[in-house]
Amino acid sequence: MAHIDLGVDEKRFPGITGPMRFRPETGQPLNELAEVLLRKQPHPLTPGERELIAAYVSGLNDCDFCCSSHSAFAAAQLPTGMTLVDQVRDNLAAAPVSPKLRALLHIAGAVQEGGKNVTTDLVEAARAEGATDLEIHDTVLIAAAFCMFNRYVDGLATFAPQDEGAYAGMATRIVEHGYGMP
Amino acid sequence: MAHIDLGVDEKRFPGITGPMRFRPETGQPLNELAEVLLRKQPHPLTPGERELIAAYVSGLNDCDFCCSSHSAFAAAQLPTGMTLVDQVRDNLAAAPVSPKLRALLHIAGAVQEGGKNVTTDLVEAARAEGATDLEIHDTVLIAAAFCMFNRYVDGLATFAPQDEGAYAGMATRIVEHGYGMP
Repeated sequence: MAHIDLGVDEKRFPGITGPMRFRPETGQPLNELAEVLLRKQPHPLTPGERELIAAYVSGLNDCDFCCSSHSAFAAAQLPTGMTLVDQVRDNLAAAPVSPKLRALLHIAGAVQEGGKNVTTDLVEAARAEGATDLEIHDTVLIAAAFCMFNRYVDGLATFAPQDEGAYAGMATRIVEHGYGMP
Repeated sequence: MAHIDLGVDEKRFPGITGPMRFRPETGQPLNELAEVLLRKQPHPLTPGERELIAAYVSGLNDCDFCCSSHSAFAAAQLPTGMTLVDQVRDNLAAAPVSPKLRALLHIAGAVQEGGKNVTTDLVEAARAEGATDLEIHDTVLIAAAFCMFNRYVDGLATFAPQDEGAYAGMATRIVEHGYGMP
């Protein structure tokens, strides 16, 4: 049971979807932010790569719903699927991602700990691998945004399905229709 | 110097205003979120009380720009001005706020540490002082949102003025015109 009465069947509207229906006025800009950051094209990072950053940060924040859902969204849009998501979350240093994406994920991990943890060295390392200002900006904001989304979802004690199939179903909807009011 | 070239004079567009100009597509939903959470009326919490929650969390996150600016925005809209903001930030237990606002600030402090730190006891304590579901929801989301804004501002190493007058000037603009593209 969530901490507040969300006015929905929590099994049908798990995780962030319940609070978004409870408070559509905040749900709308939150969805718009997710759509621009994670899906909008053209962008130098693919939607799969951007969802991978979101899943990685959500795992560091120990947010079951966001980590499971964005892992599924990443897997559905990455050529190597859930295998790569698991590899990144288990051992970023050894995961078979490009040097640029690894450097961006290091920046995302620093943001998760705190904004001031993003050092000039981390930024220069990403730049040396070809990261642009836009990619660095969006990586910082994706990581920061998931420090919000994760706290929103867990701070209200929303329901997180344990069934992987539930997240695969959400992934199909996100890939087809994008982020919008649930 | 910020970590990326924001394309602006950082002294003229300090803190979050630089990244918002660099990336208007994300700046717009971020401003809309702030406007609904911190200023939109009618609301059971005054804009001053909501800005106080934002300032309190930004202080916990050690974000100079956000803490100074939202402290100024709170002070400009609270009858007791900066004195109360300082008292809340120095010693929440002893600050002369209502029992309901103190209980909501305790929830905000828990969110800052991590979503799962918001316990049923904290929520019930706020409810016992008269807090509604909307007030609890918005407190959680304001606190979560500032865990994003603070990381965004510091993760890009944006410029934070040291001059209090700069923040008082921003407060005048926010109180008169609200959050919008700088």
